[in-house]
Amino acid sequence: MLTDVAGEILRGSPRAAARLITWLENEDPRAFPCMEALFPHSGRAYIIGITGSPGAGKSTLTDKLTQAIRSSGLTVGIIAVDPSSPFTGGAVLGDRVRMSQLSLDPGVFIRSMATRGFLGGMARATGEVVKVLDALGKDIILIETVGVGQDEVDIIGIADTTCVVLVPGLGDAIQSMKSGIMEIADVFVINKSDRSGADQLYTEVATRVEQDHHIKGRPWLAPVVKTVAVNNEGMEDLWEKIERHRRYLEASGEFMERRRERTGRETLRMIHHEIFRLVRRQLEDTGEMERLVGEITDRKRDPYSVMKEVLSGWLKQAGPAKEAS
Amino acid sequence: MLTDVAGEILRGSPRAAARLITWLENEDPRAFPCMEALFPHSGRAYIIGITGSPGAGKSTLTDKLTQAIRSSGLTVGIIAVDPSSPFTGGAVLGDRVRMSQLSLDPGVFIRSMATRGFLGGMARATGEVVKVLDALGKDIILIETVGVGQDEVDIIGIADTTCVVLVPGLGDAIQSMKSGIMEIADVFVINKSDRSGADQLYTEVATRVEQDHHIKGRPWLAPVVKTVAVNNEGMEDLWEKIERHRRYLEASGEFMERRRERTGRETLRMIHHEIFRLVRRQLEDTGEMERLVGEITDRKRDPYSVMKEVLSGWLKQAGPAKEAS
Repeated sequence: MLTDVAGEILRGSPRAAARLITWLENEDPRAFPCMEALFPHSGRAYIIGITGSPGAGKSTLTDKLTQAIRSSGLTVGIIAVDPSSPFTGGAVLGDRVRMSQLSLDPGVFIRSMATRGFLGGMARATGEVVKVLDALGKDIILIETVGVGQDEVDIIGIADTTCVVLVPGLGDAIQSMKSGIMEIADVFVINKSDRSGADQLYTEVATRVEQDHHIKGRPWLAPVVKTVAVNNEGMEDLWEKIERHRRYLEASGEFMERRRERTGRETLRMIHHEIFRLVRRQLEDTGEMERLVGEITDRKRDPYSVMKEVLSGWLKQAGPAKEAS
Repeated sequence: MLTDVAGEILRGSPRAAARLITWLENEDPRAFPCMEALFPHSGRAYIIGITGSPGAGKSTLTDKLTQAIRSSGLTVGIIAVDPSSPFTGGAVLGDRVRMSQLSLDPGVFIRSMATRGFLGGMARATGEVVKVLDALGKDIILIETVGVGQDEVDIIGIADTTCVVLVPGLGDAIQSMKSGIMEIADVFVINKSDRSGADQLYTEVATRVEQDHHIKGRPWLAPVVKTVAVNNEGMEDLWEKIERHRRYLEASGEFMERRRERTGRETLRMIHHEIFRLVRRQLEDTGEMERLVGEITDRKRDPYSVMKEVLSGWLKQAGPAKEAS
């Protein structure tokens, strides 16, 4: 039964993939053996991150880019990550509307991940879903997320090529340039480029990219692509630039290097999550947690000594916080 | 020496507090014994969260509210959390400018937390800094953060009273209403209320609050306060509403209930973080991580069996992922 689901996924069943993703979301133990069975068949898909401020038009861009990729004959998996924000939580409805349109194409699989407070973080969950869609046989996986907050930056760390979407008039381009977005962007997209201010934004971004290339010696010169996604303009150009970045990564050896780093991060995240899950369940099931919290709240104990006690009861190696005592 | 720092903080030294916070940020082991020594002296300060979209005027509001609190004779600690976003990273400079103005008042302590990729999450770090400012003797602690992303929602979970700042014309009020912000807001602030659309926004929010109160039976009727922070308008009113919420929490018993829940979350978070730190250090220092990652990347092994192996080497109790194998 369990390996049935894995087998069906390997034979391309979207229904089986949807079931496994639900198991992953619910922390259902049936997910484990499936993921083990699928793992040797993953690692083949190319992963593209699409990130940018709310209002940058990421959903539309993802749709139109998917159509461009489909016409080149490749299949696509889309993971839309909603950062569970009280301020941007409106995305879910939009995704559902979209899903009903694109889902007519059997070469496209869409999954919206909007779970608030996902244990172990959205980045871990997204990494697992990527592996499922990869094993399902999708050639290209698009991850769409608002690039706000550490968790979302971690999500983008899963991608081989990261596209940062900017729009004229939001006034945050310069700030974005200052604060680390240069490092995560492999391709810049100026969307809604029929708006006034598009040329100025293009020049600002291109200038900054060239500075980073020539002065700081960053080897990849990130291209800047103008699009009007809603009119389907610029999609071929964008896809061509993404493919160029892929060829660069493969030729330079950076591709394997990035994948190796990602595997390290994912493995640590998985180990960490599982240990914590076990410790937490034990503490809560035995009622020990409630007792400890009561003592801390009443200031009879402090949380630091409680932490040391809990860890020394659990871990075989390296006495907890040893160097601190 | 270590307890000197804790002792100085208890005697009110901002320099000692700043040093301990730096230790916390750097994961310096000297922080542990200090935090243990300070803990019995914490729990006295009242904690207020200020959250809202970028551009809502949270920084100015925090400043002016601080002045209002100061004129009532209470001391204030301010923690400005920058969510380390590539899209909103501009806040740091503003905080520094502000810091140089308000820091003339010895009754105010300001700390800006802008560290990207804080190990263990910004929420854990913010919770620790709250305890330091509490032990330093600040009566009121204001936490200012953009409420986007899970980490920021967790940060707001630290507060006793959460103020959600909205502004006319951003057009996200209705979406915010839908997507969970009602649950976190104890006081609504309509800032920049001299702008057109303020009355309409006020009515929308107030109507929704009353619905939640009367229909869903939420016991606290969240007040809606109009302010123009930049002109210092509405600050007394806001402070009065916050104090009213405090009296409500204390009278209803919700105060202790919330604090108890927070202690539980913080203790779990601390255990979570410390486990990760220990496992990671051990795996990386021994070179085991590099070997395992190489094998996984080459598809010789899968990360799930690696996880089980690592866990069985670490845990005294409860065989890892037992129910999953």
